[in-house]
Amino acid sequence: MSNSYGTLFKITTFGESHGVAIGVIIDGCPAGLQIDELFVQSELSRRKPGQSKITTQRKEEDTFKILSGVFEGKSTGTPIAIVIENQDQRSKDYGHIENTFRPSHADFTYQEKYGIRDHRGGGRSSARETAARVAAGAIAKLLLKEYSIEINAFVSQVGELKAPHYSLLDLSKTEDNIVRCPDPAMAEKMIALIDQVRLERDTIGGIVTCVIKNTPVGLGEPVFDKLHAELGKAMLSINAVKGFEYGSGFEGVQLRGSQHNDEFYNDQGKIRTKTNHSGGVQGGISNGEDIYFNVAFKPVATIMQDQQTVDKEGNDATVSGKGRHDPCVVPRAVPIVEAMAALVLVDFLLRNQVSKI
Amino acid sequence: MSNSYGTLFKITTFGESHGVAIGVIIDGCPAGLQIDELFVQSELSRRKPGQSKITTQRKEEDTFKILSGVFEGKSTGTPIAIVIENQDQRSKDYGHIENTFRPSHADFTYQEKYGIRDHRGGGRSSARETAARVAAGAIAKLLLKEYSIEINAFVSQVGELKAPHYSLLDLSKTEDNIVRCPDPAMAEKMIALIDQVRLERDTIGGIVTCVIKNTPVGLGEPVFDKLHAELGKAMLSINAVKGFEYGSGFEGVQLRGSQHNDEFYNDQGKIRTKTNHSGGVQGGISNGEDIYFNVAFKPVATIMQDQQTVDKEGNDATVSGKGRHDPCVVPRAVPIVEAMAALVLVDFLLRNQVSKI
Amino acid sequence: MSNSYGTLFKITTFGESHGVAIGVIIDGCPAGLQIDELFVQSELSRRKPGQSKITTQRKEEDTFKILSGVFEGKSTGTPIAIVIENQDQRSKDYGHIENTFRPSHADFTYQEKYGIRDHRGGGRSSARETAARVAAGAIAKLLLKEYSIEINAFVSQVGELKAPHYSLLDLSKTEDNIVRCPDPAMAEKMIALIDQVRLERDTIGGIVTCVIKNTPVGLGEPVFDKLHAELGKAMLSINAVKGFEYGSGFEGVQLRGSQHNDEFYNDQGKIRTKTNHSGGVQGGISNGEDIYFNVAFKPVATIMQDQQTVDKEGNDATVSGKGRHDPCVVPRAVPIVEAMAALVLVDFLLRNQVSKI
Amino acid sequence: MSNSYGTLFKITTFGESHGVAIGVIIDGCPAGLQIDELFVQSELSRRKPGQSKITTQRKEEDTFKILSGVFEGKSTGTPIAIVIENQDQRSKDYGHIENTFRPSHADFTYQEKYGIRDHRGGGRSSARETAARVAAGAIAKLLLKEYSIEINAFVSQVGELKAPHYSLLDLSKTEDNIVRCPDPAMAEKMIALIDQVRLERDTIGGIVTCVIKNTPVGLGEPVFDKLHAELGKAMLSINAVKGFEYGSGFEGVQLRGSQHNDEFYNDQGKIRTKTNHSGGVQGGISNGEDIYFNVAFKPVATIMQDQQTVDKEGNDATVSGKGRHDPCVVPRAVPIVEAMAALVLVDFLLRNQVSKI
Repeated sequence: MSNSYGTLFKITTFGESHGVAIGVIIDGCPAGLQIDELFVQSELSRRKPGQSKITTQRKEEDTFKILSGVFEGKSTGTPIAIVIENQDQRSKDYGHIENTFRPSHADFTYQEKYGIRDHRGGGRSSARETAARVAAGAIAKLLLKEYSIEINAFVSQVGELKAPHYSLLDLSKTEDNIVRCPDPAMAEKMIALIDQVRLERDTIGGIVTCVIKNTPVGLGEPVFDKLHAELGKAMLSINAVKGFEYGSGFEGVQLRGSQHNDEFYNDQGKIRTKTNHSGGVQGGISNGEDIYFNVAFKPVATIMQDQQTVDKEGNDATVSGKGRHDPCVVPRAVPIVEAMAALVLVDFLLRNQVSKI
Repeated sequence: MSNSYGTLFKITTFGESHGVAIGVIIDGCPAGLQIDELFVQSELSRRKPGQSKITTQRKEEDTFKILSGVFEGKSTGTPIAIVIENQDQRSKDYGHIENTFRPSHADFTYQEKYGIRDHRGGGRSSARETAARVAAGAIAKLLLKEYSIEINAFVSQVGELKAPHYSLLDLSKTEDNIVRCPDPAMAEKMIALIDQVRLERDTIGGIVTCVIKNTPVGLGEPVFDKLHAELGKAMLSINAVKGFEYGSGFEGVQLRGSQHNDEFYNDQGKIRTKTNHSGGVQGGISNGEDIYFNVAFKPVATIMQDQQTVDKEGNDATVSGKGRHDPCVVPRAVPIVEAMAALVLVDFLLRNQVSKI
Repeated sequence: MSNSYGTLFKITTFGESHGVAIGVIIDGCPAGLQIDELFVQSELSRRKPGQSKITTQRKEEDTFKILSGVFEGKSTGTPIAIVIENQDQRSKDYGHIENTFRPSHADFTYQEKYGIRDHRGGGRSSARETAARVAAGAIAKLLLKEYSIEINAFVSQVGELKAPHYSLLDLSKTEDNIVRCPDPAMAEKMIALIDQVRLERDTIGGIVTCVIKNTPVGLGEPVFDKLHAELGKAMLSINAVKGFEYGSGFEGVQLRGSQHNDEFYNDQGKIRTKTNHSGGVQGGISNGEDIYFNVAFKPVATIMQDQQTVDKEGNDATVSGKGRHDPCVVPRAVPIVEAMAALVLVDFLLRNQVSKI
Repeated sequence: MSNSYGTLFKITTFGESHGVAIGVIIDGCPAGLQIDELFVQSELSRRKPGQSKITTQRKEEDTFKILSGVFEGKSTGTPIAIVIENQDQRSKDYGHIENTFRPSHADFTYQEKYGIRDHRGGGRSSARETAARVAAGAIAKLLLKEYSIEINAFVSQVGELKAPHYSLLDLSKTEDNIVRCPDPAMAEKMIALIDQVRLERDTIGGIVTCVIKNTPVGLGEPVFDKLHAELGKAMLSINAVKGFEYGSGFEGVQLRGSQHNDEFYNDQGKIRTKTNHSGGVQGGISNGEDIYFNVAFKPVATIMQDQQTVDKEGNDATVSGKGRHDPCVVPRAVPIVEAMAALVLVDFLLRNQVSKI
């Protein structure tokens, strides 16, 4: 198992979907940070289930409790433990999968790897685990604010519906609609599509784009912990993610070097690049331009339809869609992507303190 | 800095492009592994410069020396240190960039992060560093062979030229041509395109696809070190990589769940999936199907043309194309992708030894 | 901060003496281990305050709750989170040290390092943190039992009062008295001495000896993570510990090599040593003989007397003895030493699974 | 295996006693540090064999070569690889132990753990490995000098011969004699004793004391990586070490709290302690006072006498003293203890950069 992430700002998460509680320990948060609990709660609420008609109807308020590490409103340098109790489990909804493997879920692989699994609600493999990441990411965001670093993710694609390039959007509008696409017209179409898919008892995938502004030059640790490599790992560790690209990404492979290269210029004393195919990262280190990347999410595996499968003994079986699930995961994935980005950045921010004497 | 990769099978690399030598220490290779030095050399030769007309003409034989950890042909459990001396440096080719930042290279970011840089040949940011990875990856491959795990990468795209899906190809033909595409007709087109680009004093990007067969069920460590998340990080840590996707990848976002899900069936006593949109990984753990993924490489940043830039003081400057470089990086990237994949797999193979009592 | 210990069986602890709760996440416990909760509680009870007249009178039942990682009584391979709520805090007892530094406590160093501290009960620096270690150590012991490894610590010295060498003692008698010395006569003397010291409103130090039997040959990872080096670190990380020695220890420096060397012999097919000055460890690796070591604890810093000190501003101040404290820490340190030893051993047991192919 | 030490200033060593070379990679040395190669050599020379009549007569100049990470005399932030070639191996001296286990050496445990071992000169378990530590420690010392931190170790005991407390000695005289004891009269006695033991074809143990001055307040990371816990681990990882104590150490257990506590006072604006039983560390964090500790070394296991043992098959065997060895290890251990102390301190110095915002 590997339930820790980060080098200096290190989080360790725990908890199963239908267990007593989920939570996280943050070890390495510098002392003296004002911990704005309302902000942490607001981040959790952006991720919580039941927030709109296009998300799962499981009801979890996701209220959290800080058990340690904060004194008189400030971090003390000791580990910050955060616990979120589970409340609206309906474990009986999952009795049918105790011995049966749901297609494209982790039931089979967990069973084989560990020889035992908590099948209720998917156990540890449930996306419920990401609430702990969002709580920790909120603390990371508070620290990044001290450096004016801004992280904004949004839904840029649902199925075939694509929003324009981020530079053409007003990212402050992301939270104005339930699908979290800052293009209002496209948002309506996306919502309609998700709703239609839901009525068809099916699910659909999508893309979350994330833009990070005001990053100082120098974050990222060559050669293996390149900034974009850690961002990639962090995103790929989120449930249902199938791909990651930054800057010019996959499309960039078709360009010539003469088209792709970002020439430098002097912008009133600051060295900048004219274009930004590099996505704000060169040689694995931030160059001060916008960092932007795309994260591809597959369609949710739980569908409200019968599917063929096998049971633990290898007998043919049918699994029928039960439980409460999202028809499309990307709206709720937006704060998760931001949280993981924040955790990556804050860790590199701290690591960069010791790059030179 | 972060020059180590892996948890139990851990490598640490060192060396600059025009320094004395590059190399790697492998710590954690189990004792008793037969070290086939000819195989290690053959892997290095697949990556070495000057191997064909479509690669850089720098001449490095990349012969290696094992300094420790091997006794009478076998690993002893102690660290295996491998050194590759640099021979054909032409550092004077790089005098012009001592104070000038090449567009889309790491010159600027290294200078800012460290306040000092070895500019010769790009120093540590040079892709020459990947030779150390290939040497270590060769040792990893030797260990994987004991488990019959096979890793095959190939060039699946150059510019707009795309090879068919891997399942339609005979991967044993990859090494039959200099571009390393197992589709002979497409390989010819790719070679022609790269040659044309080279004559235009330009560069072009491409995609390397990697297929891993015979992986046992159970590799990968949820939640943060999911198998595909580590593969993603490992690939993104290779120079010039801009994107990673596995299984259905970015295209999968357009599918419905009912199309995307991989139903299980009993294949003569072995539980398998009918389709493989999952790319051999479910819940971050291998399920025994083929693991396959794509790695996007941008066009090489060094072009044989004049480009506008600035110098260290921020003055406008022109950088002209010098040095010896690849017009397209993907042919030589094939063994690098395989090496990193091998390092990821071998680490998870060892980590999985302790998953259950 | 560094609140994690272990490589494969990794624990992360949190919590302050007078905060909401303390606890631990165990990441890396193999799946399938029967979790005997009564045993965990019994270990916590051996450490809990208020257990006898010679310990602090703070009343904490130290009942624990498992939040995750256990399903139907067995570990699942996912992180095991354990929480122990604080109950009998009397934070007002500590108002006097909010701005004043207690001699030989961590008040001053925490304040300087972090710029802020939770002064109540010593906050994170309180030995209350060790309850989390004992809980985790109990899980480790359950795993060690599967391998028949036995860990027995006992009080071998209080002040100048020394028990005989462990080989002359019946270690099964350790729990028969409140000072945890298996020599009944010496135990009485120790109890009398501690009681006398308590009446003098003073404190006294002591030594805990630990003996580990049935360790398989091969545990320990040269060169830096030698078995005894990790044992040393683990012990020295316990509050109030000032020294560690194993095998012949400090006295061994006076021996000649010809006296000190442990000759091998064949004991009915098993290779053993005639003597055991090595303390069961050679070259950092267990050799199958008893592992034994001594851990020195200083006298508890909190005494019921007035002491001179300074406050945060550097003004002269007097700190008077308040709060509830142990006159001698070693009786309650016995289960803590065992817990840390168990954590070290279980980690090496898992790490050793991958030493050879 | 675990051949790395350190968190931010991380070293990885490699090499066997009679292999091609030994060496180290330092990853995490901040950029911009002037690398004084003469100083590195002088440190290696303090450790090298053959330096006096009371050390082994193996002749190794221990000249080193820096392969990477240094440009124009300064560290660049990239890994610094240092290699020391082996020259005066006499592997034939070791043929007799190919199948026989030397008492109190690591022959047996390595053989059992790995199933294979490089027996020549003890292979990886040879103290020759410490040369790599000394080289890395020299770089660490260069960085510590920037902060005026001074590390001075010396021989404080050989057999029963003890030097006075460090506060009574002039530590600048340590290098004035071949035994490295700053008390000239005691040094003569120690040399005579070692010489006598050597003539008796035997060996003897001793103690190295280390004193660190000018450490800033705040180094050390509670709770597991306490400053003294890491010092303890670092020292115990050195070959032949059997014990570690700091401050009042083992003798301190006999004191009362009222005697042991270090009262604070205001020394012209600086908060200091009147006494220093704490050994400069409180709560695992440096308090600015002298850090001092003792390291116990057992008598060298190789003696020039016949000893009873068994061979690989468990047959009785005799091993006779061959090879070239030290009659007492402590004089050459002095620079090793200093090197490890430097590595511990420099790591904590870097880690402390991120303790507070």
